Amino acid sequence: MSLAVVLVSPRNPLNIGAAARAMSNFGFLDLRLVRPYDVAWQEARSAVGAAQVLRDTRVFATVAEAIADCSEIVGTASLGHRELQHSVRRLEYGGRLIREQLADGQSTAILFGSEKYGLSNDDLSHCRWLMRIPTREEHESMNLGQAVAVCLYELVRRDEAAQESPKPKVGAVAADVQRIEEITLEILRDAGYLKPPVDESSVRKVRRLLQRLEFNTEDARIWLGMLRQIRWRLNTLKSSTHPDDI
Amino acid sequence: MSLAVVLVSPRNPLNIGAAARAMSNFGFLDLRLVRPYDVAWQEARSAVGAAQVLRDTRVFATVAEAIADCSEIVGTASLGHRELQHSVRRLEYGGRLIREQLADGQSTAILFGSEKYGLSNDDLSHCRWLMRIPTREEHESMNLGQAVAVCLYELVRRDEAAQESPKPKVGAVAADVQRIEEITLEILRDAGYLKPPVDESSVRKVRRLLQRLEFNTEDARIWLGMLRQIRWRLNTLKSSTHPDDI
Repeated sequence: MSLAVVLVSPRNPLNIGAAARAMSNFGFLDLRLVRPYDVAWQEARSAVGAAQVLRDTRVFATVAEAIADCSEIVGTASLGHRELQHSVRRLEYGGRLIREQLADGQSTAILFGSEKYGLSNDDLSHCRWLMRIPTREEHESMNLGQAVAVCLYELVRRDEAAQESPKPKVGAVAADVQRIEEITLEILRDAGYLKPPVDESSVRKVRRLLQRLEFNTEDARIWLGMLRQIRWRLNTLKSSTHPDDI
Repeated sequence: MSLAVVLVSPRNPLNIGAAARAMSNFGFLDLRLVRPYDVAWQEARSAVGAAQVLRDTRVFATVAEAIADCSEIVGTASLGHRELQHSVRRLEYGGRLIREQLADGQSTAILFGSEKYGLSNDDLSHCRWLMRIPTREEHESMNLGQAVAVCLYELVRRDEAAQESPKPKVGAVAADVQRIEEITLEILRDAGYLKPPVDESSVRKVRRLLQRLEFNTEDARIWLGMLRQIRWRLNTLKSSTHPDDI
């Protein structure tokens, strides 16, 4: 994959550092800056957690130079941008197009404008289309570092992952659950919750109750320990208060 | 929808402000803080762009109090967390579950840990399951504000939007394109690119070439203007150099 993140006229070193960190998080390492505010750029280089990205970052004087080797140029914009010349695509759709282009080996640049003004009309004239993060109309404008993070997440997210089942807990073996069931029934009988003779339907009720808890191996062990202790306590109390019951 | 974002022991006012801003961007307004570093919280309140969220933010002494009214509690974690008691779900999948739960009217809390340590074992014990942003193993740990932004984006993103066609450009009416075609043919003949008599297949070739440009209304007007100027210039030059051609 060959994706360049191009920040045009960034002013805040924290945002350059944050963009670099999100790139490193999601595995995109090609950061390019166009006319960064000089102090910002010097400060950003010391940002933690994105050393490799910042070390390899290239600085350009113009957008044209920054994107010269890219065949697809995508701008980021809010709905406020009334650049009717461009198609504005929601991130979900635009991200899919970019993923497909990257898979086809097309080198692609995503341009982000300055914190305050976004991309200028001149910057936008280099873009083939625009991409919009689906923020709400009442508060559209995102922080630069967060916008980069959200766009890159869309590029690495996998639809299939949404369908995956979670890694199942390692369930306790049936023997353990049966042992829990036996002791639970014993305790409930001793406690007078179940009256002997205990009928089969009560036993099934308790079994289903326990099955729904989906004990894992470790938890089953802990529950068994607790239940055994309760049974022991009940038995001890019974023997001391009613010695003739032994 | 009733979603609470719970930041546990946040230290950096910029991160609290950034979390609030992303929440406002994506339309989630219920921010809760557990034991924020006091100075951080006071500073964060002045963060721009998220006034409503920060004004309504509630501060709690314990995780238990912060989540008391929520029926689903989700922690965020990296793979480094070896909390085998919990299922760890990728954001794509976890986000889908949370969307479904919110649609069912379940009030849900997502917990984010401190910048440095993430959620503690004690914090995690309140969670039913954990969610993981699919960052790469070499650099897993995200900035807090960016992590909040990415998780909330997953909650508002719409699968259908990825399939949507972009809003089509308002295409130029066929009459305009035909006018462009006529003048182009005239110029190409005058320039000697097409030799008269111009055959139908050449005309079709030019027409298809122009159709593929998908002029919009505004652009068609501009192209017509440019082409007319070129034709005028050609005619002027012809008449001055070969007066007998008039």
